[in-house]
Amino acid sequence: MSQNKEREHSCLTGACQAGISPVNVAIVGASGAVGHELVKVLEERNFPVGELRLCATSRSAGKVMSFKGQSLTVEETTPDSFTGMQVALFAGGSASKEFGPAAVERGCVVIDNSSNFRLDPEVPLVVPEVNPGDVKWHKGIIANPNCSTIIMVVALKPIHDAAGIKRVVVSTYQAVSGAGAEGIAELSGQTGAIVNGGEYPPGKFPYQIAFNLIPHIDVFQDMDYTKEEWKMVKETHKIMHDSSMGITATTVRVPVYRSHSESVNIETNKKLTAEQTRTILAQAPGIIVVDDPREKKYPMPLFCSDKDEVFVGRIREDNSIPSGLNLWVVGDQIRKGAATNAVQIAELLVKYGCLQV
Amino acid sequence: MSQNKEREHSCLTGACQAGISPVNVAIVGASGAVGHELVKVLEERNFPVGELRLCATSRSAGKVMSFKGQSLTVEETTPDSFTGMQVALFAGGSASKEFGPAAVERGCVVIDNSSNFRLDPEVPLVVPEVNPGDVKWHKGIIANPNCSTIIMVVALKPIHDAAGIKRVVVSTYQAVSGAGAEGIAELSGQTGAIVNGGEYPPGKFPYQIAFNLIPHIDVFQDMDYTKEEWKMVKETHKIMHDSSMGITATTVRVPVYRSHSESVNIETNKKLTAEQTRTILAQAPGIIVVDDPREKKYPMPLFCSDKDEVFVGRIREDNSIPSGLNLWVVGDQIRKGAATNAVQIAELLVKYGCLQV
Repeated sequence: MSQNKEREHSCLTGACQAGISPVNVAIVGASGAVGHELVKVLEERNFPVGELRLCATSRSAGKVMSFKGQSLTVEETTPDSFTGMQVALFAGGSASKEFGPAAVERGCVVIDNSSNFRLDPEVPLVVPEVNPGDVKWHKGIIANPNCSTIIMVVALKPIHDAAGIKRVVVSTYQAVSGAGAEGIAELSGQTGAIVNGGEYPPGKFPYQIAFNLIPHIDVFQDMDYTKEEWKMVKETHKIMHDSSMGITATTVRVPVYRSHSESVNIETNKKLTAEQTRTILAQAPGIIVVDDPREKKYPMPLFCSDKDEVFVGRIREDNSIPSGLNLWVVGDQIRKGAATNAVQIAELLVKYGCLQV
Repeated sequence: MSQNKEREHSCLTGACQAGISPVNVAIVGASGAVGHELVKVLEERNFPVGELRLCATSRSAGKVMSFKGQSLTVEETTPDSFTGMQVALFAGGSASKEFGPAAVERGCVVIDNSSNFRLDPEVPLVVPEVNPGDVKWHKGIIANPNCSTIIMVVALKPIHDAAGIKRVVVSTYQAVSGAGAEGIAELSGQTGAIVNGGEYPPGKFPYQIAFNLIPHIDVFQDMDYTKEEWKMVKETHKIMHDSSMGITATTVRVPVYRSHSESVNIETNKKLTAEQTRTILAQAPGIIVVDDPREKKYPMPLFCSDKDEVFVGRIREDNSIPSGLNLWVVGDQIRKGAATNAVQIAELLVKYGCLQV
């Protein structure tokens, strides 16, 4: 009772006055790059936030962040951080392993941006444009897929529905912010040093990233593929509910601040023309088609950042096989590749009435 | 007679004293990025240069360049520039259209780095590691392939010989120096301006290239593929003498100064393991395998520049099809992708005795 009163009292969005049940939200890892974006996206999408609790490690506790014009102080995450909360958004890292079960025990639905639970058969892995219904069978935790995977599957889904995808060959061009705020700082500091005749040794990345490419993201695993490359295979199979789809990936870090790009080659069962594909993609949710090459219109990471949609261009038939397509897909991996997708999952929970009152 | 005397007199390499017939070489477009590299590569590879004549447009005439410690003045190209020369190396652009026939009439073999004659059925298109014998049927002009194509076919050839290549899906990551000295200046100036809070509008490239990717190299043509993408298809077919090979390409400009990188997916007729592929490539001419991911060893453009070889790493079986491979291929596109390949063709002409004495 007192909890409800407190909740109404601290409703940050006016949702309660508008007759919408406000949702109490905890963000874990609030002070990092994805955490900041989660706060921003909750605000921008006007998610009906009741109380907002910002949590992080003790190192970041005490920082002040802003939400809808109000200042909120970051607290150290403890099991009790989740008391009275209904949704817990975990930005990444190991925190969901440590605190996820405590949040679930306290009645929260955990939406986890880390890779900790993504391939757990008890945990739905959700991209709202692709498999929204999977949120319904959650058992407390819902996983947010890897950024490169999210961006790709949003583009694959409508093609799979229309023509059946047999095989995908993807090569990525991944921005440094995929490695968090430290990745951004390293590209910036390193470029500045080089331009001004100085040096800035690699720290976050294994080699200099300024004016270079590093074909190595995350650790190396089976068959000499990186974990990032396997994520694009295994997570896509799970999200698309189709493990027969052939997928092979090469993931590469590039000296771009934000937005991942992907060169995606697709073999379909049924032939699609470029024009049919353009129409299908333009009508699909979460996609903006930018594809008028004669007018020099195609997606580029510099112009796709801070956007919630996935941008698709360079749509071409691949005549090296009977039913082939090439796409160039770009998406802001902190937005749609992380924060936006997580908030969209929370929106589905509200829509489907999946939250404890 | 007097010509021969003059030639001996001006022999720049000591080839004549060493009993090797010196070769008189004209370089057209000597003052550009590829022209400079041609001079450097002739020197480094100790090509038996007799007289060296440096030619360019009137704008660059009068510039002084150095070869083996001697200063040479750039002349304006005229038909008479080729009198007494045996090999004419054309760095690029339209010069070979204008002066190529005049050079051939004067007994020169033209080695042309432009795309003007590459698909002409009367003109051999040669990568010495792949189709050296094609120099023998030249009718005065030999074409040097597109840089991205050269780098790819050096890696494809030994695999094609061992297992038969059915299909290739390639995505490129191309350095700004592929657009010449102006491309380098634009990345450098633009990055410096951005780092120091200024602006540097695009000129050479259609959009900002610093911290961005541009999926557009050369003009758009059939089926919305760029000319650069079609070059990788059509030139590969011609060089490999196999137009049945399925090839599809997506070419992308990246903010890297030098060396092109390519993510190459290959379907072979006969299955090759990653280990077999590694062995085959390591034994092939012009290739250095850098592939020890656990030790963070893979090719990167920053470390492949100023090298004549093509570097191959990230060699993996692609299990999305029965006989698939993924490679990450990097090569200096001004060296092996242009100047080195041209000088190697000249070396073949000497070896096969194809030059007029």
